[in-house]
Amino acid sequence: MAYFDCASSAPLHPVARQALLAALEEGWADPARLYREGRRARLLLDAARETAAEAVGCRPDELVFTPSGTRAVHSGVAGALAGRRRAGRALVVSAVEHSSVLHAAEAHEAAGGTVVRVGVDRTGRVGPAAYAEALGPGTALACLQSANHEVGTEQPVAEVARACAAAGVPLLVDAAQSLAWGPVDAEWSLLAGSAHKWGGPAGVGLLAVRKGVRFAPQGPADEREFGRAPGFENLPAIVAAAAGLRAVRQEAGEEGGRLRALVERIRARVPELVPDVEVVGDPVRRLPHLVTFSCLYVDGEALLHELDRAGFSVSSGSSCTSSTLTPSHVLRAMGVLSEGNVRVSLPPGAAEGDVERFLDVLPGVVSAVRERLGAPVSAAGAGDAGAFAGEAGALAGEAEAEEAAAFGGEAGPSSASAGAVGGEEPALTVDSLGKRCPVPVIELAKVIGDVAVGEVVAVLSDDEAARLDFPAWCEMRGQEYVGERPAERGSAYLVRRRA
Amino acid sequence: MAYFDCASSAPLHPVARQALLAALEEGWADPARLYREGRRARLLLDAARETAAEAVGCRPDELVFTPSGTRAVHSGVAGALAGRRRAGRALVVSAVEHSSVLHAAEAHEAAGGTVVRVGVDRTGRVGPAAYAEALGPGTALACLQSANHEVGTEQPVAEVARACAAAGVPLLVDAAQSLAWGPVDAEWSLLAGSAHKWGGPAGVGLLAVRKGVRFAPQGPADEREFGRAPGFENLPAIVAAAAGLRAVRQEAGEEGGRLRALVERIRARVPELVPDVEVVGDPVRRLPHLVTFSCLYVDGEALLHELDRAGFSVSSGSSCTSSTLTPSHVLRAMGVLSEGNVRVSLPPGAAEGDVERFLDVLPGVVSAVRERLGAPVSAAGAGDAGAFAGEAGALAGEAEAEEAAAFGGEAGPSSASAGAVGGEEPALTVDSLGKRCPVPVIELAKVIGDVAVGEVVAVLSDDEAARLDFPAWCEMRGQEYVGERPAERGSAYLVRRRA
Repeated sequence: MAYFDCASSAPLHPVARQALLAALEEGWADPARLYREGRRARLLLDAARETAAEAVGCRPDELVFTPSGTRAVHSGVAGALAGRRRAGRALVVSAVEHSSVLHAAEAHEAAGGTVVRVGVDRTGRVGPAAYAEALGPGTALACLQSANHEVGTEQPVAEVARACAAAGVPLLVDAAQSLAWGPVDAEWSLLAGSAHKWGGPAGVGLLAVRKGVRFAPQGPADEREFGRAPGFENLPAIVAAAAGLRAVRQEAGEEGGRLRALVERIRARVPELVPDVEVVGDPVRRLPHLVTFSCLYVDGEALLHELDRAGFSVSSGSSCTSSTLTPSHVLRAMGVLSEGNVRVSLPPGAAEGDVERFLDVLPGVVSAVRERLGAPVSAAGAGDAGAFAGEAGALAGEAEAEEAAAFGGEAGPSSASAGAVGGEEPALTVDSLGKRCPVPVIELAKVIGDVAVGEVVAVLSDDEAARLDFPAWCEMRGQEYVGERPAERGSAYLVRRRA
Repeated sequence: MAYFDCASSAPLHPVARQALLAALEEGWADPARLYREGRRARLLLDAARETAAEAVGCRPDELVFTPSGTRAVHSGVAGALAGRRRAGRALVVSAVEHSSVLHAAEAHEAAGGTVVRVGVDRTGRVGPAAYAEALGPGTALACLQSANHEVGTEQPVAEVARACAAAGVPLLVDAAQSLAWGPVDAEWSLLAGSAHKWGGPAGVGLLAVRKGVRFAPQGPADEREFGRAPGFENLPAIVAAAAGLRAVRQEAGEEGGRLRALVERIRARVPELVPDVEVVGDPVRRLPHLVTFSCLYVDGEALLHELDRAGFSVSSGSSCTSSTLTPSHVLRAMGVLSEGNVRVSLPPGAAEGDVERFLDVLPGVVSAVRERLGAPVSAAGAGDAGAFAGEAGALAGEAEAEEAAAFGGEAGPSSASAGAVGGEEPALTVDSLGKRCPVPVIELAKVIGDVAVGEVVAVLSDDEAARLDFPAWCEMRGQEYVGERPAERGSAYLVRRRA
C-alpha cells in the first residue's frame, strides 16, 4: 500500500508526533492563565510561534495560528479587504487558487465586492504581466498561491509581488503547498499556511500579516492570537505543527531532490507506458513531489478505485468522481483534459520501489478501465512517441487519427444522426445527452473517422466536463475544435476532422 | 500541586488521550477522499459524530464539529441570526453569558442589529419571566448558557426554552460548562459545546442545529461539515473529543456526586475559615465541581500568585489581575464583590486531600495578602457567624462595623478631607484616585468609623471595580450605599455609616 496523496494531507511527521505527545502533557492548560500550567502553556505557544515565524520568514508578532489553512485564508482575505476598504472593493485572484481563496472571493462578491480572476497558461501559471494589468486603483487585495495544489506549477510570486508593491496593493500568498519546501521568496504582505500539508497535525493553520499592512479582523474577536483568531488555542497541535515544520525544512533539501527525481521519472515514463495521456503542469518550475496527468477515455472515479485496489492512494481532478460533479477549476482554467485525471503527490520518505510498482500497475489499470468503457483502442502502443505529454505547455502535436479511423468501419452509434446545428452544417450528429464524462468523448472518437477530412461532427452533450474535454481532445488528436452552440438540451460541440 | 481550574480547560481524559493516539495512526487522511486512508478517516468521523450526537441528544446530521467552542458559538449565533433575518434583528442574551456569546452579540450590534441583555439575580440566575419579557416580535434569536462558567449557577434553560417556543424564537444554549455532566434537558434549537472543557483535546467544538431551525451559515463555506464549518477536519482530535465525552458521561454520576460533596465542603468551610468572604453563585442549582468566592480587601492577582506558590491553580474574575483591567462581567451583573475573587473548579479525580490542603492554606494566604495591603483586620475570627456567605442570594446581613470602628482611632489617610460632593454633604472625603482595587475599599473601611452614624463618607475613585465593590462592601458590612456622583476625575462614591 502506498499513499501518494500528500497534497491532500501529509502523514504526521515523526518529530511532530513526538512534539504532540509531549505537548499533550505540558500544554493543555490555558496560556492566558497566570498559574504554572498556564505559564508553561504560554512558553510553549511563544516558542512555537518563534519557530513557525522563522520558517515562514517573518517576525513572531506578525504570525498567528488559526484552526486550519482554510480559516487562515478566510481570515486573511476578509481582514485585508476590510483594512483596505477605503482603497476600493476589488479583489484580484488567480483562476487556479485553492478553493479556500475562491470561496473567500465568492463571499466578497456576495457582499457587493468585485473579483478579478487572472487566467493561467496551459501549464497553470499566471503571467506576471497579465496579473499586473489586473491591479487597478480600486484593488484592495491580490492573492496568489506559491504553487498550485493540483498540478504543482510554481507561480511567479516574486514578480507579482513587485507588481503589487508598485501598485500599492497588498499581496496574500497561499503557501499551503510549498511551505514544507522553503519560505516564499518574495515580498508578500500576508501569507497563509496549513500544518497538515507539511506533516503537522490537522487543526492548525497560520496567518502572517506584515507590520504596516492594513488589517481589520472580521467577525467576533477575543483576546487570543492578537485578536486575529478567536477561540482557545489548539496548543498541543500548534506545538507539533511548529516542530514538524522545522523538521521537514531540515530534510527539505535532500528529500526534495530525491522526490523531484522520482516525479521526473513518473513524468517521463507515464506517457511512454500509457497511450493517450497528457502530463500537465510545468515540468521544471514545480513542486518537487507532485505530478498530474490525464488519461483520455478514462473515468476518473473508476481509475481511482482500481488504483486503490492495487494499493495506491491518489486523487483526481476529474468531474467523474463521486465527491464532485464538475471538473477541477484548475484543469478547466488550464484548458487541459480533465478526464481520467490522476494527481500523484509523494510524501516525504516515499519509496522508490512503490513508485516503480505504480508505473508497473498503471498501464494495466488504465487499459482495463478503457476496455470496460468500450473506449477506442489506441494504435499507439506503449512507448509510442505519439503519446501526448503536455510538457511546458508544448503539445506533442502528433495526431493519431488512425485510431479513430479504425472505428470508422463500424456502424455509428445508434444515436448518431446527420443534422444542422447553428451556422455550421455537421456531416454527423451524435447524441450523448445524459451521458457522463468520458463517454461523450469516447463517442466522438468512435465516429470522427466516419466523416471526410474537412467535415464536421456535432456531439450533443449536457455534461459539465464536455466543454473542457472536447477542445482538449481536439488538441491532443490534431482535430479542429470549431466551437459550442446552445442546443435544445445541453450544447452541441462541433469538431472538424483534420486528420 | 493541584489544578483547580477545570472550567478554563480540563486535563485530557485518559480515554480521550488513548483515542487521540489511535486516531493519529488511523485518521490523518482526508475523509472526503475515496481511497482506503480516506474511507477509514470517514468512518472515524462518522462514528465520532454519532457518539457526540448521542451525548448531546440530537441526530448525527444535526451536529457539526467546529475548531473550538468559541467558533461554535460564533457560527451558531451568526447563522441563526442570518437564517431569521426576516423575523427581525434583535438578539436576546443573558448578561452572564460566556464572552464568546457576548462578542458575537457585539459583532451583531456593530452590524446594525440590536441586543437585549437580560439581567440576573445575585446568584447569577436569569429570571424566566424577565427572559420571556425580553422576547419580542422582532427577536431573531435567544441565547442562554446551561450553567455559568464563573459561578456555576445553573440557568432555567427548560423554562426559557418553553418561553422561546411560545414566542417562536429559536434558543441557542451554550452548554460548554455542563456537557460533561449530562445533556441539556430542554427543548433547545441550537447548542454549542467545547471539547477541552469536558476533558477532550483543544481544537474541537460542536454545534448542533435542530432540523427545522432556519440557519444560514455566514462567511465563506466549503463542503466540510455540511457546509457549516469550513476547513480540513481536525479528525484525530474530533475522535478523541467524542471518546472523551462518552467516557466522562459514564463517570458523571459517581464523580459528579463526589465533587459536589467536595464543593459543598468548600462552600461551607471557606466562610468559617476566612473572615470577610462572600461565597457567590447558587448553592444548590449549580455545577457539581465549581465554587466561587470573593475576599474583601484582597488583590485578586496577589491571591492567585500566592495560591500558585502554594501549589494551587485557580482563576479569578477580579479586575486586579494582569490579564484584565475590568472586573468580570458576570460578577458585575450579579452585583457581588469582585475583589479577591477566586474560582475553584475541580477536575474529575480531584483528590479530597488536595481540597483539604487548599482549605488549610487559604486562610493564611488571604491574611498575608491583606496584611501586605494594610487592610483592616476583621474582628470576626475564623468561624465567625458574621462571615458573609451569599448563599441562595440571601445576605448574611450581620454588619461588622466594629472592625471599621477599630480603625477610627487612627489618623485618617492623608488624602482624606472634608468637602461637598453634589447634593449630599459628606462629613469626610477620601481621595483614592489612581489607586486600584482593592485599595479604595480598604481606605473606605479605614475611615468609616471616623464619621458619626448617619454621616456620609465620599471616596473619590477612578477604578473600574469601584462601581461594583463599594455597593458590595456596603451590603456585606451593613452600611448604606448612597450612590455615585461624577467628579472632576473618576467618581465620588457616597457611603452613609449605619453601624
